[in-house]
Amino acid sequence: MSNGYALPIQRLIEEFSRLPGIGEKTAARLATFVLRDSVENAHRLAHSIIEVKEKIKLCSCCYNLAEGELCSICGDTRREADKLCVVEEPDVLIAIEKSGCFHGKYHVLHGVLSPADGIGPEQLHLFHLMNRIEENGVSEVIIATNPSVQGEATALLITKMIQKKPVRVSRIAMGVPVGGDLKYADHMTLSKSIEFRRDIDLS
Amino acid sequence: MSNGYALPIQRLIEEFSRLPGIGEKTAARLATFVLRDSVENAHRLAHSIIEVKEKIKLCSCCYNLAEGELCSICGDTRREADKLCVVEEPDVLIAIEKSGCFHGKYHVLHGVLSPADGIGPEQLHLFHLMNRIEENGVSEVIIATNPSVQGEATALLITKMIQKKPVRVSRIAMGVPVGGDLKYADHMTLSKSIEFRRDIDLS
Repeated sequence: MSNGYALPIQRLIEEFSRLPGIGEKTAARLATFVLRDSVENAHRLAHSIIEVKEKIKLCSCCYNLAEGELCSICGDTRREADKLCVVEEPDVLIAIEKSGCFHGKYHVLHGVLSPADGIGPEQLHLFHLMNRIEENGVSEVIIATNPSVQGEATALLITKMIQKKPVRVSRIAMGVPVGGDLKYADHMTLSKSIEFRRDIDLS
Repeated sequence: MSNGYALPIQRLIEEFSRLPGIGEKTAARLATFVLRDSVENAHRLAHSIIEVKEKIKLCSCCYNLAEGELCSICGDTRREADKLCVVEEPDVLIAIEKSGCFHGKYHVLHGVLSPADGIGPEQLHLFHLMNRIEENGVSEVIIATNPSVQGEATALLITKMIQKKPVRVSRIAMGVPVGGDLKYADHMTLSKSIEFRRDIDLS
């Protein structure tokens, strides 16, 4: 990245290249777009980047990303406070919210158990989760960590921590994706879809 | 793009989505990255965006993007001033520079002839190009507009404007790309590669 580009353009290309999934060519295309775009639009983009760093903190209750002390979900009194959905990342929370199928509250772990990386129960705010369960009269905890080895291990640990409490603990179902073709499903998914099978209720 | 995301994140996702080739999901991934990244890095990205709008102008000689009055190529006295390469966009100039095969100067049209869009010789700075050819003792003009209908029309017009002058006018070769497989080449490219064929010199 030397010849031809003026220095400020080179710098912008380098900055864009640092973003995930953005290679040098895409970065150059984005920089060219910014160059041709209006000054107002460029300022809005730059301002949004700064603003997100200044204003976004972690919700003091569920560790979701929040603009104030509490996130919009914890601050919403219409949500069912007795149901808690445990997720690894804020992005998963957003995905579940978009599906519109869950009306309870969340607990965001910001990771999964990984002793090799020094990530244990403290780093995942699990003791705070236990406090929430006790103090807020939670009746069900749905564990929506990823269907990966570490996600499963984390789900198992949480289940063990909760098992003595009078709380239903459930795990999201694993199975074939809706619209998927069974002949292309991998073995693990297929065996999970059989393990998680449900009786058909004709009533 | 409503549920779950705090407003500053929503705004950043919207701003990223405006960039070319960035859909909503990629924009959300970029925004998440910025959120996790350091404050310094976010400021550097934002600053680069502003800087590029403030500092980059068009070179007063060749209309390349430049940090000062002249671009780095026009300001470089070691370049062969008697050869001019005409390109549509600054990006093409960069690509040719990276190939390292041209040591002359450039003229950037910032477009191609397109009467329907009101783009004629004036908009492409063609009269300024003619002045440069006369005043700077240019001996060869290489027309490197794209191998498209409009690029060809533009090349033809430039050739006609120059033809009375004592200047060699050439067009970049069209043919099969190096490393390409002839059986996958399209008909137009194949016929161009035969039309542009060159005698093999065994001497």
